[in-house]
Parts: sequence; C-alpha cells; structure tokens
Amino acid sequence: MSILVVGSVAFDSVKTPFGEREHILGGAAMYFSVAASFFADVRLVGVVGDDFGKEHEAVFSERKIDISDLERVKGQRSFHWKGEYGFDLNVARTLDTQLNVFADFKPKLSEGARQADYVFLANIQPRLQREVRQQVRPRIVAADTMNYWIENDRPELLETLKVVDLLIINEAEARELAEEPSLIRAARRILGMGPTRLVVKRGEYGAVMFSQGSYFAIPAYPLEEVFDPTGAGDSFAGGLMGYLAATRASDEAAMRRAIIYGSVMASFNVEEFGCDRLRRLTYEEIDERFKTIKAMTHFGDSDAPRRSISA
Amino acid sequence: MSILVVGSVAFDSVKTPFGEREHILGGAAMYFSVAASFFADVRLVGVVGDDFGKEHEAVFSERKIDISDLERVKGQRSFHWKGEYGFDLNVARTLDTQLNVFADFKPKLSEGARQADYVFLANIQPRLQREVRQQVRPRIVAADTMNYWIENDRPELLETLKVVDLLIINEAEARELAEEPSLIRAARRILGMGPTRLVVKRGEYGAVMFSQGSYFAIPAYPLEEVFDPTGAGDSFAGGLMGYLAATRASDEAAMRRAIIYGSVMASFNVEEFGCDRLRRLTYEEIDERFKTIKAMTHFGDSDAPRRSISA
Repeated sequence: MSILVVGSVAFDSVKTPFGEREHILGGAAMYFSVAASFFADVRLVGVVGDDFGKEHEAVFSERKIDISDLERVKGQRSFHWKGEYGFDLNVARTLDTQLNVFADFKPKLSEGARQADYVFLANIQPRLQREVRQQVRPRIVAADTMNYWIENDRPELLETLKVVDLLIINEAEARELAEEPSLIRAARRILGMGPTRLVVKRGEYGAVMFSQGSYFAIPAYPLEEVFDPTGAGDSFAGGLMGYLAATRASDEAAMRRAIIYGSVMASFNVEEFGCDRLRRLTYEEIDERFKTIKAMTHFGDSDAPRRSISA
Repeated sequence: MSILVVGSVAFDSVKTPFGEREHILGGAAMYFSVAASFFADVRLVGVVGDDFGKEHEAVFSERKIDISDLERVKGQRSFHWKGEYGFDLNVARTLDTQLNVFADFKPKLSEGARQADYVFLANIQPRLQREVRQQVRPRIVAADTMNYWIENDRPELLETLKVVDLLIINEAEARELAEEPSLIRAARRILGMGPTRLVVKRGEYGAVMFSQGSYFAIPAYPLEEVFDPTGAGDSFAGGLMGYLAATRASDEAAMRRAIIYGSVMASFNVEEFGCDRLRRLTYEEIDERFKTIKAMTHFGDSDAPRRSISA
C-alpha cells in the first residue's frame, strides 16, 4: 500500500547543546517520508527551490521515495528554518523563518498521488490540507497541525478536522485546540471534532492514543542524550503510518504497534542531526528497539493481596 | 510482614482549582500508612500535638494502623502546612509552614518498631532518617527526600543514601540530586550513591524504575481531574511497599507490580481531598484499576514489516 505525504521540504540551521549544523535537509515531509519508507512506498508532494541539489535528491532516491511530485521553483530558494534548543530539548526557539517558495505553496497532486491509500497531511495551512484531502480517497488520512493555525486559522482548521481520521499533535497543541487544561477531557473534545483517533506526542514522556472507548499510553524509549529533536514528531508519524500501510490493518492492536514503530523511528531520529541516523538505520536495530520498549513496559497480572482488618 | 514508616503526621490547609479544605489530616506518614495498610500491617513513628484528636485517631484505627509509637506532645500543636495548587497540579505553592512539634522531632522506636521487615523513611532530615536506619534490620529500606535537603543538607543526605535500598523521589529531585539534566544519566549516578533501585515519580506522566541492567516505565492512570495532589507521592510509596511486604518478594517482576500498585493507590488518593478517597476504597476498585493500567499499556510483539528497496 502506498503513502502520500504533503508538506515541507526545507533546509534547517540547527543549534543544540551538542553541536550545530548549517543548511541541512529538513522539513516535515522529508522526516516523515524517510521514516515511513522503511515500511511502505512513499510519494512526496512539496516544493523546493534552486538550492535543492543532487545530494539532497539522493536522500530520497536511496530510500526509494518518489519525489516526482516535488515541485521545483526556478530562481527561488527553499523554505529555511533556523532554530536552537537549550537543555530542555522539548522546546525549539525559532531564530529565523524564511518561507521562500513555501509562501505560495499550492500542492499539486498527480494522478499517481491521488491513488494513495494512506495520506499524511503534514503541518501546513489547514485549507491546503483540506484541498488535498478532497482529491484523495484513502483508507486513512492523518494530519498534524501547530499552535499557529490553532490560534490564527481556527475556523479553517476545524473544517479540516472534520475530514481527518487520525490527528497526531503534541500535548500543548491538544490542550490549546480543545481549550481545556485536562488532557483527558481535551481528547474527548477533539474526538468530537471529527478524528476517530487522536495521538498525542509527549516528547520524553512518550505518547498516548485516544479513541472512543480505548486509551493507550507508552513511555518514550530512554535516551541518554537527545542530540537534535528536530523532526521527532514527523518521523514518529512516518513510522506509525508506514506500519499501517505495510500491514493494511487499522484495528486497535495494529494502531498500538504502529505507535511503537512511531516511537522507535523518532527515538533513532533524534540521535543525530537531520536524518543522518535514519539514513543508516537497519531493520535489526528497529526490531531490537521495539523489543526493548516491550520489555521495559511489561508487567504481570495480579490481584491485590488482601489484608484482613476486621476486628 | 510488617512495615514501619517514620515521618510526618500533619494538618493541611489546601486550596485547589476544585475547592478548599482547612486543617485536614495530612502528612507523609499518614498518606503512606493508609495506602500501605491495604496490603500489610503498618506501624507509624511520628509526632503530633494536642490538636490530634479522637476523629484523627479513627483514620488510623479503622485501617488497623498501629500508632502506639506516635508521640503526643502536650501543650503544642501538630505540624501544619498550608498550600495551594493552580491548574498545573504538579506544583504546590506553599503559603505557610508551621513545624510546631515537628521542629524537634526525634524518632523513638519501640522494640516492636525495630522488628519491622520493611521500612519507609519518609521525607525528614537525612540524619534522622539514618538514625532510624541504624536501629532496624529490615529486608528493604526505602526513602524519600526533597529539594530542601538536597540543597541544604547534601553531605548528610549522601551518607543516608548509602544505607537505603530503594530511593523514591520525583523527577526534579532526581536531576538535582545527581546534578545532571539527563534523567537516564542522573539515574545511573544515583545508583552509584547507594540505592540498588531508584523509582522516579513523574506525576501525570507516570513513573520509572531504574536498577543495574533494568529499566521499567509506566504511564499514569488517566484521570480527568486531579482533585487534590497532596499525598500522591506518599500513597504511591505506600502501595509499593505494601505490596512488597505482602508478597515478601523483591525480584524485578514483583517490583514492577509493586509500582503498579503504587500508581493505583496514588491515582485514587488524588481524586478527593486528604485521605477521603482511600478511606472508602475497596479491593475490587484496586483490582479493576490494576487491570485497566495493564490493558492501556499492553501491545503485541512484532517484527518490522520489511520493504525491499534494492534496485
């Protein structure tokens, strides 16, 4: 089964407590597609400028990611993001954003792109997400969004949520979207907006999934060092959707395993700058980390030992 | 097997977004002993003043908690804490602390207290914790501490940690004690200070346990409302130690189940003010919540679906 991802391909300049890099390949759609490509065929719709060269194409071609729908704009530069992370790696500080070609991005879907069975609408303007949605008839549509759209484009976002099956956002976004400090109540409210499932990313605290009548929570894989958190959320979504597309399943058990694969891919992604770690990742490493998460969360059944305190 | 807890019995005046209460029974040793009493015999060493009356004794007697070692000081008042919580219920704001009888607390252990097989040193001055430790020969000694001692009594605390098996602290305390922002590295450093196991409480994000060569992590039971977080950490420790004492086990599997019981007891405790919820808790409710945590964390084994990308 094939996956379509629509979103940003960018260049990032990133500084973390462990080092810095200038103008490395980034963007939500890049991170998503590289992670998902381990499990399923992926086609990417996005836009880049003249600065997207052969060495950047290679990242996609070596993972057999289809970028024939990646638009190239002559005479302009790609989206550029510059940011840094302090020791609290959960929060990025944006130093500079140059939208460049991304400012006028209008996703153009080829006939092949419209045939995708799984669609991920990465974090772009909600109206654009919806326009993409209207051109596809997939099994599952997942979407991300961010505080900017929640605050500045709420009516459009709410319309888009009506046609999304799976919303994958972080904890602060969930509370803000629902206007509700209790995450449990926020989730219930969001499930009333359209999505049948909500996955909340919690960074070093793992992830939780809500649907009508079910709740699933996992801790994050324990890393000594988060080297560069950029792309964690999108590689999480990529692992998740990749697993679903590969197995064609969407029941609760499959969704749970998909979340584990999402966590696994995100945990590798943050170990190095950009997609460096994912580029040389092996299936053996993926399987080992899956087993580790299983082992570190497992516990046996039990009934409470009862103490008699009657007189 | 019997448990000894040494620590505070207090009166609390608490305000949360959901209401407020004046002068209700509190204190670490109270919360611990009520939670632990569901599983094992508990004996409490502490000190109170004249304001500790028959209705407060009843909380202990109805749970068959032995308070014959609870010292009564005539003409003085009990420890009193006044605090409030905002919508971020992880952080208490202390408005007033009156140590009263607790200022000169010197734990006095009867012969019966010294026979305890399990000992919990609640959050008191590290030197007092160590003096208690030297009078007992239990199977397991667990301890709590707080940022105040980490900052102002570090040498004494480090001496005490050398004679503690199980340290149960929150995440900020772990980072501060180890002087290390990475929790994984902080844990390794703390395990080098004496304890063979470290349990880190993370509030709404659950708990993690570290020991040489093992790591266990669980999410918290999902509550719509944390009504009053006071005593969450001590009821967690009470459930944990209670289970260990009841089963006389201390292997990894038992420790993991003990952490689940700790989480279960803490999750009930925060549903109402003081120990109101624990006082009417049933074993059926405990068993149900244990099963729910199991169900919400379970996922099946899997190998990664492999996609061939060779030419």
